[in-house]
Amino acid sequence: MTLKNDLILRAARGEAIERYPVWLMRQAGRILPEYREVRASLSGFKELVETPEKAAEVTIQPVDLLGVDAAIIFSDILVVPEAMGLEYQMIEQRGPWFEKTIKSEADLKYAETDFNIEDRLGYVTEAIRITNKELNGRVPLIGFAGAPWTIFCYMVEGHGSKTFSEARKLLYTNPTLAHELLSRITRVTIQYLKAQVEAGAHMLQVFDSWAGILGTAQYAEFSLPYLKEICDAITEVPVTLFSKGAITSVGAIAKLKCNTVGLDWNMDVETIRREVGENRTLQGNLDPCVLYASHENVENETKKMLDSFKSRRHIVNLGHGVYPDIEPEKVKTFIKTVKNYEIKY
Amino acid sequence: MTLKNDLILRAARGEAIERYPVWLMRQAGRILPEYREVRASLSGFKELVETPEKAAEVTIQPVDLLGVDAAIIFSDILVVPEAMGLEYQMIEQRGPWFEKTIKSEADLKYAETDFNIEDRLGYVTEAIRITNKELNGRVPLIGFAGAPWTIFCYMVEGHGSKTFSEARKLLYTNPTLAHELLSRITRVTIQYLKAQVEAGAHMLQVFDSWAGILGTAQYAEFSLPYLKEICDAITEVPVTLFSKGAITSVGAIAKLKCNTVGLDWNMDVETIRREVGENRTLQGNLDPCVLYASHENVENETKKMLDSFKSRRHIVNLGHGVYPDIEPEKVKTFIKTVKNYEIKY
Repeated sequence: MTLKNDLILRAARGEAIERYPVWLMRQAGRILPEYREVRASLSGFKELVETPEKAAEVTIQPVDLLGVDAAIIFSDILVVPEAMGLEYQMIEQRGPWFEKTIKSEADLKYAETDFNIEDRLGYVTEAIRITNKELNGRVPLIGFAGAPWTIFCYMVEGHGSKTFSEARKLLYTNPTLAHELLSRITRVTIQYLKAQVEAGAHMLQVFDSWAGILGTAQYAEFSLPYLKEICDAITEVPVTLFSKGAITSVGAIAKLKCNTVGLDWNMDVETIRREVGENRTLQGNLDPCVLYASHENVENETKKMLDSFKSRRHIVNLGHGVYPDIEPEKVKTFIKTVKNYEIKY
Repeated sequence: MTLKNDLILRAARGEAIERYPVWLMRQAGRILPEYREVRASLSGFKELVETPEKAAEVTIQPVDLLGVDAAIIFSDILVVPEAMGLEYQMIEQRGPWFEKTIKSEADLKYAETDFNIEDRLGYVTEAIRITNKELNGRVPLIGFAGAPWTIFCYMVEGHGSKTFSEARKLLYTNPTLAHELLSRITRVTIQYLKAQVEAGAHMLQVFDSWAGILGTAQYAEFSLPYLKEICDAITEVPVTLFSKGAITSVGAIAKLKCNTVGLDWNMDVETIRREVGENRTLQGNLDPCVLYASHENVENETKKMLDSFKSRRHIVNLGHGVYPDIEPEKVKTFIKTVKNYEIKY
C-alpha cells in the first residue's frame, strides 16, 4: 500500500523533506479522553495491549485527533519478557510487577528463546495488521521494543526502581549470567522486531529507558553490543535508538547502523549534533513540561527547540513521553507550530 | 579543638596530603546493625533526626566501626522546608510526604524566612555540638543542606518522583513564583549552614539530588544562581557541591566559589577533570553497586576508580549514597583499599 504521508521515513533516511515530521512518545494514551473511554471498557491496561482491535483503535486515535505524522503501535516493552516466561501485572499507580525474577543460572528457565513469535506475541502483529488496514496509508506505523539492557533491568529487578540496584548488582556479581540473559533478550527482540516489520511496521524504535543509570564504560559493555546486534540484524526499515539519559554514550550510539538517534530533553542538541555529524537524523526533544505552559509559551519554546537543531535531519518529538495530564489542545499547538515551521537547512 | 586527622580539609583546599581521605554518603545509616539498633529504640526516622544525643551517636558510629576520615552529621535535607512551614512525614518504604505544597503565591505563607534558626533547627546544631565533643577531634565533622533547587522540588511536588513534573511545570507556568521560592529557600539555607559552622561543622556539603532532571539551560537559570549565592556567602569553611546527574553543568558548577565538586558514578572523571582543571578538588565516585561484588572485585574496582582521578585533589567517596543492604565488611575493604593506595601525583 502506498503511503500518502511518508515524511518521517524520508527524514529518517536523510532525504528531502518539505517540513519536519512530528509525533509524540505516548501519543496513544491517557491524554486523550477517547483513549480513556476505550480503556474504561476493558479490565485494564494489559487487556488493551492484548486485544488487537482495541490496540489498533487507540493507535489510530492520535492520527485522527492530533494530526501526527506517524502512528506507533499501542503496546508495552514488557510483552517480550512475558513471552520469554516472566509473567507481569500492571498495577494501577505503581507500574509493572513481576512475580518471578532472574537472579541465578537456574532462573534462566524463565528466559526462553526457542518459541514462535506469532504464538506468543501474535496479538501485537495482528494489531499492526489491523492498524495498517484501517490507516489505509495515511501515515507510517512505527513498531517498537525495549532495548535488551532495559528489559534486563525489569527481568532482574522485577519492578521499576530509581536505581535498579538489583539489576546493576548482577553486573558485578555475575557478569557471565548478565551477558547470557542479555544475549537471550537480544535474540528474541530481533525476531520480534522482524515479525513487526513483516506484519507491516514501516519503521522501528528501540527504547533504552534505563540507559541513564549506567556509566559510560558499563553502557559500552552491557548495552551497546546488544543494540549493535539489533541494528545489524534489521535492514528492512529505518531504526531509531532512544537511550534516555545516556548523555555520554550518544556518540557511540550514533555509530551503530541506525538511522535516527532519539534525544531526551536534557541533551544539548548542539553538542550532540557536533558529536554525531550529519549522517544521522536526530529525534526530539522538547521538554514534556513545556506543554503545561500557555499556548503562547508552547509555541515559543517549540520554535526555540526547532531552531536549536539546525539541520534537515530532524524528526520532531518530545524528549520523553507526553505526561498524562497534558491538555490535548496544548499538544495541538505544539504540532501546529512544527507544521508551520519553515526548514532553513 | 585541634583535629587529629584533618586530611579531608587539606584535600579540599588542595594542600599536601599523605594519602587520600575517604568517607561515604549515607555512612551513618542502615548498613550498620548498630544504627538499626538505635533506630529501633525510637518511633522512627524523624525522632532520630530530632534527638541530638541519638543523632550524634549514629553520626559517630561509622568513625568507630568503619574508620572513615570524616563524620557527617545525621540529619535530613527536608528539615529546612519543615522549618519554613511545610511539615513532612517520612513514610516507611515510600519516602517523604508533605501534606501541603507550594503551588501559588498564596501558598508562600508556608515558605517563611523570618525566623531564628536556633528556634526551629536547634536540634541540628545541638547534635553538631554533642558530636564534636564526643569525637574529641578525631576527624572533622561535615554539615550539610539540600540545594535550593532540590528543596524546591519537594516543596512543590510534595513527595519523591521520577520526573518531578509538578515542580518543573512551575518553571514554565510561573517562573516568577519559582524564583521567589528559590530565593527564600536560599536565604534560609545560608543562615542554616552558617549556624552549622558556628556550632562546629568543619566543612559543608550541598546536595543537589535532583539536578539531573533539568537541562543545561534550566539548571543555569533555576539552580546555579542560588548555589552561587550560597558559595559566595560561606567563607568560613570548605564547601562541596554535589549535583547528582548534572553531567552537562559540572563545568559551570566548578566555576562557583566551592572547594570540591562531587561526582556521581556515571560521570567520566577524565572528561570532568579536563573541564574543571586543577583548581578544584573532585569527590567520588565509585559505583555503589561495586560493594555488592566480592572483596577481590571491590578492591580491584576501587583501585581502578582511584587510578582514574590522576590528581592529588581527590576526596574518595561513592558516586551516591551507600545502599542499605551492603555488608559493612565490603565497605571496610573499600576503605582499606583507599588507605593503602599510594598517591602518585
